[in-house]
Amino acid sequence: MKHIYAEVITIGDEILYGQITDTNSQWISAELDKIGIKTIRKTSIGDQKEAILDILKESQERADILIFTGGLGPTKDDITKKTIAEFFNDTLEINPDALGNVRELFESRGFELTEINRQQAAIPTKATYLNNAVGTAPGMWFNQNNKIIISMPGVPFEMQYLMENEVLPRLRVHFKTPFIIHKIIRTVGIGESFLASKIEFWEDALPQHIKLAYLPSMGQVRLRLTGSGDDKEKLKSEIEAEAEKIYPVLGKNLYSLDNEELEQAIAKLLLKNNATLATAESCTGGYLAHSITANAGSSSYYIGSIIPYSNQAKMDLLGVKQETLENFGAVSEETVIQMAEGAKKALKSTYALATSGIAGPDGGTNEKPVGTIWLACAGPNGTVARKILSTKTRLVNIQYGSKAALNLLRKMILNENL
Amino acid sequence: MKHIYAEVITIGDEILYGQITDTNSQWISAELDKIGIKTIRKTSIGDQKEAILDILKESQERADILIFTGGLGPTKDDITKKTIAEFFNDTLEINPDALGNVRELFESRGFELTEINRQQAAIPTKATYLNNAVGTAPGMWFNQNNKIIISMPGVPFEMQYLMENEVLPRLRVHFKTPFIIHKIIRTVGIGESFLASKIEFWEDALPQHIKLAYLPSMGQVRLRLTGSGDDKEKLKSEIEAEAEKIYPVLGKNLYSLDNEELEQAIAKLLLKNNATLATAESCTGGYLAHSITANAGSSSYYIGSIIPYSNQAKMDLLGVKQETLENFGAVSEETVIQMAEGAKKALKSTYALATSGIAGPDGGTNEKPVGTIWLACAGPNGTVARKILSTKTRLVNIQYGSKAALNLLRKMILNENL
Repeated sequence: MKHIYAEVITIGDEILYGQITDTNSQWISAELDKIGIKTIRKTSIGDQKEAILDILKESQERADILIFTGGLGPTKDDITKKTIAEFFNDTLEINPDALGNVRELFESRGFELTEINRQQAAIPTKATYLNNAVGTAPGMWFNQNNKIIISMPGVPFEMQYLMENEVLPRLRVHFKTPFIIHKIIRTVGIGESFLASKIEFWEDALPQHIKLAYLPSMGQVRLRLTGSGDDKEKLKSEIEAEAEKIYPVLGKNLYSLDNEELEQAIAKLLLKNNATLATAESCTGGYLAHSITANAGSSSYYIGSIIPYSNQAKMDLLGVKQETLENFGAVSEETVIQMAEGAKKALKSTYALATSGIAGPDGGTNEKPVGTIWLACAGPNGTVARKILSTKTRLVNIQYGSKAALNLLRKMILNENL
Repeated sequence: MKHIYAEVITIGDEILYGQITDTNSQWISAELDKIGIKTIRKTSIGDQKEAILDILKESQERADILIFTGGLGPTKDDITKKTIAEFFNDTLEINPDALGNVRELFESRGFELTEINRQQAAIPTKATYLNNAVGTAPGMWFNQNNKIIISMPGVPFEMQYLMENEVLPRLRVHFKTPFIIHKIIRTVGIGESFLASKIEFWEDALPQHIKLAYLPSMGQVRLRLTGSGDDKEKLKSEIEAEAEKIYPVLGKNLYSLDNEELEQAIAKLLLKNNATLATAESCTGGYLAHSITANAGSSSYYIGSIIPYSNQAKMDLLGVKQETLENFGAVSEETVIQMAEGAKKALKSTYALATSGIAGPDGGTNEKPVGTIWLACAGPNGTVARKILSTKTRLVNIQYGSKAALNLLRKMILNENL
């Protein structure tokens, strides 16, 4: 079994000056890892011709695949394309497909195609054009001297589009990689260390060729089983058999075997029950609504949200009582219950979630420190509320509060259907 | 004027596998930049002896300073220290200061000092010990063959402690560095290529020692001027003078000289005018509210949002008329104007922004393709609406629509104050 080695090279003075964090190289190497390609080095260089020529030469001596991002914009400081052409003694020519794509993007936005943008469609003649449907900079694929060299724009969503739709499928075809199979088991509402002690007995008994990784994120832990081998079907059933052993232990903390986001698992539950959802967000300030509506098709079960950032809006739009706010405060069980019930009524939904907390950095007290968040879920059979203590960091509180609210809803729906 | 060049090398398999994002190299190069040391390359390699020996050799040929992080833990996979010793034909010896530090840390936590931890105090004899008061792994400084080589642990707060207290002060003394000054000009509402042709005359006339870079992101372009020279005050005023030439050309597309986000610039405008803001979001689904409320202190100018994802909610909560929805559809100038005016009324705000569009991937028609977004801003002197055409990608449309809405508000406030 031959290993396939890759190097990832990010180009841009702004990376070297420390003005932006390079997240592209992490994303790329994680994707390569999934198809069994090993990243052996990552390099960041500036927008300088000599630096690009040097790394092209060096990296080809070590790796089978070179993946470049950055330096493909229309401006003068972006020189990746012409430097790669120079390296291969090649010239740039307008590629008709690339030009069609640039033209379409400009026309769909009602802009005229300038000469500087027409030049974005020029690529080295030795390159295979990779279609970037979400931007004007083309992707390029070179198969030279038995090495694969790929160049993509540095804008993360453009790079990700190109990787998913053009680069990874081609790499899978070009190289015959060993079979690597991943299975992801998603859990929510249990911390990494608790989970680890709960399933230690199972982890220790896993066979040599199946490895377990814990991938924690906001309120969730994904368990990733990775197996490698030559017999794909055998490997698949081995991983399934190992995974099935642990489901009963995980119980309701297990929420998806299909590597879905919590929002997608909840969408399925709502649709299955012909139910709809509304939200009322104070401290999460729109993030909960955004995390739901980021999913295509959400309008079939999501009615909408009321975000009453001021107390007046809480009274006007959700019917929270003035004396409740005065006696218990906006961050209280009493208020959050009235918010959830008010949203359910105003938006005429089956379920309604509400959040009210102290996101920080200011506004905390001894009794209610920053990170105190009240959550409520109103449903057909009543309302439940729960208090959580998150962190001192505003953005973490916003995101963690949203995920915890979604889990409160998930458990309510599951309990009602038991 | 001699430039001082550095390379930053991060060591760790977890970086190559894409399991963690390397934030150390960004932090280090930003600090180096502040004292005029230019990072010319960043490299990430795994915990392998050959990879470390290779990069030690290569980087010394290019740079004056090599800064390593990672691979200094007590476990077997951490081999940075002994590999550097091997490179210099050196041996490891227990350093008394390092041992004192390790002993103190263990005793203060009530732990016994094991042999494996005693070995953390062993460093190459040619190294100067750098005191890591916040962890057990020592920092090391080598001055060999006229090159400075620094090795620090990869744990971010330990690395930062060592940089601030040991490394940066020594580098300032060792090298006499030129001054590097950056100035960032933030623009919104004009694409990179249009901006580039508009300011080409100015870019071409910049003096040799002042360079311009375009840093594009969603709906925005940051212009970064970077100058280097020996006279700090002179350089500063030269950069200011060059920057000032372009402000009139940028006009209202220029929104910040303080490197602020658009939301922060708008917060300042609202507070200055004693004005408040509400939002009504259909296609942006909460993202606009989130981008505002992600900023601490937003409750002093932001009243809240109504997110009427269903047509019924648009009528119930914002007073959009049924015949408007029937005759023009939810994605129309007429609807979005009623949404903005309805939100202004319901939430009792000075300004209200509304969005209604086809985020995709489904729901597009020939007349209104995916990416069609109507925006409206209602203010004290009336309401304006604008249509934009974004992309086919749901998340891009959500984010781009939100930024464009904010810019519509910004321009309305500016016009009223002219």
